[in-house]
Amino acid sequence: MHRTAFRVRYGDTDRMGVVYYGTYADYFTVGRTEWMRDCKVPYREAFEEQALVMPVRRMSCRYLAPLHFDDALTVETSVSDLRPSRLTFSYRVLGPQGTLCAEGETEHAFWDETRKAPVNLAKHRPELWRLLQEAADGLSTDSP
Amino acid sequence: MHRTAFRVRYGDTDRMGVVYYGTYADYFTVGRTEWMRDCKVPYREAFEEQALVMPVRRMSCRYLAPLHFDDALTVETSVSDLRPSRLTFSYRVLGPQGTLCAEGETEHAFWDETRKAPVNLAKHRPELWRLLQEAADGLSTDSP
Amino acid sequence: MHRTAFRVRYGDTDRMGVVYYGTYADYFTVGRTEWMRDCKVPYREAFEEQALVMPVRRMSCRYLAPLHFDDALTVETSVSDLRPSRLTFSYRVLGPQGTLCAEGETEHAFWDETRKAPVNLAKHRPELWRLLQEAADGLSTDSP
Amino acid sequence: MHRTAFRVRYGDTDRMGVVYYGTYADYFTVGRTEWMRDCKVPYREAFEEQALVMPVRRMSCRYLAPLHFDDALTVETSVSDLRPSRLTFSYRVLGPQGTLCAEGETEHAFWDETRKAPVNLAKHRPELWRLLQEAADGLSTDSP
Repeated sequence: MHRTAFRVRYGDTDRMGVVYYGTYADYFTVGRTEWMRDCKVPYREAFEEQALVMPVRRMSCRYLAPLHFDDALTVETSVSDLRPSRLTFSYRVLGPQGTLCAEGETEHAFWDETRKAPVNLAKHRPELWRLLQEAADGLSTDSP
Repeated sequence: MHRTAFRVRYGDTDRMGVVYYGTYADYFTVGRTEWMRDCKVPYREAFEEQALVMPVRRMSCRYLAPLHFDDALTVETSVSDLRPSRLTFSYRVLGPQGTLCAEGETEHAFWDETRKAPVNLAKHRPELWRLLQEAADGLSTDSP
Repeated sequence: MHRTAFRVRYGDTDRMGVVYYGTYADYFTVGRTEWMRDCKVPYREAFEEQALVMPVRRMSCRYLAPLHFDDALTVETSVSDLRPSRLTFSYRVLGPQGTLCAEGETEHAFWDETRKAPVNLAKHRPELWRLLQEAADGLSTDSP
Repeated sequence: MHRTAFRVRYGDTDRMGVVYYGTYADYFTVGRTEWMRDCKVPYREAFEEQALVMPVRRMSCRYLAPLHFDDALTVETSVSDLRPSRLTFSYRVLGPQGTLCAEGETEHAFWDETRKAPVNLAKHRPELWRLLQEAADGLSTDSP
């Protein structure tokens, strides 16, 4: 599990005075980008510069408590499922005092931008596949 | 069921060249805002100006096909569940040629901003409750 | 001069209860996209599909009156300067009752994505240059 | 002068492959929020919780070089003008290797949310006025 911390920006909020529900997609994106950097498979270098992308196939979010402007928040990111054709991240968004504000998931396909086709990562990028497997394992045992 | 049509804005896209996955939350918001206007319960006047809000408790989205800059899209919005304490909208986002690009749901609570408490709409706002019930019924029979 | 009308979305607002100042960039983008479509030089087909882009070099905005959620707004877009190497758009954002809420400008370069170099439109794309000239003239005489 | 550093998020980019021009408004907002926290006048506590807000009256930005997804960027924020009725911030956005990517300004009014009227800060909030003056002076001598 990986933790990344930052603050709510003014534009993240809406007229209800709290963070807009769509903004959590941005927080999830920050979470998984930092997870990948931490696991030595940075998305830009290990994926996009190799013409490999991870489009989102499914996302879900439950909203449990509001976040406000300037709140310090933490996104906890882990891999909840990893298969040769897809990867699922789980997120927990914690606000001040560690309150659980939201939790959700994003499921991603592996997609080859050159061939415009899905990729079996285990077969076509075995080194990347092994790194992701180790990262997913290592990190999940990390959080008992 | 209500349909609202508009175009993908430039800023809706990301560097993958397609609409960013978080943008669909905005499209869902447009869909339900227009559903409510169409059903004579406009969110601003019927809800917010009465200190009643509908915070999102849960959202989910499945992404089936990409949308591109300037694509004409249609959001089809319907109510999939209505209870005294909450309302669930279902959305289908259609791209050019009617391709189904995404589908999802948002679940909302009814919340009293003055009392800072959940609201039983059937009990405390019977007229609004009746309007929503008629709208949800009328519109669902509308789409055979 | 071209007019395009739409409504303020919920996510356009911030916790001050009005449209966030950064959102006006999106409104300007909608304004110039519709200006270009109206002038038969749609940005996607006439520019991007020809590997020609118009990156923003400068933007400015004055905020005169707030816009609120669900307000019907109109963006008036015109060309205030057109040269072989660049194009400047002027915008006026009008709220309900025609109140002037904001006005601003964006200046764009013409850029060849294939050669990664600026383009002299009059020399290298004379047909596009002529269409833009006519549009800029025609539309400006339109607004006395 | 205050420096704050963070990374470009995926959703900050657009289909041109670089940061969308409207996103810089968010970067400026982060810059001034951190400037204020650094100067012991945090916006949320020193302003908003006292029913005092600083709406943007004018913004401008020049775009000099593009920023890409995951780039580490720095926003340098300083006060370029401070008067009892308004405050102007200047920003420089630096990309990798310190490249100047954008520079701009935002001008803010002081506004009393309770009285719905402009505020002469020197007269009505002398302690806040003095803190801002010291911060603007202190920080500008900081950057020779």
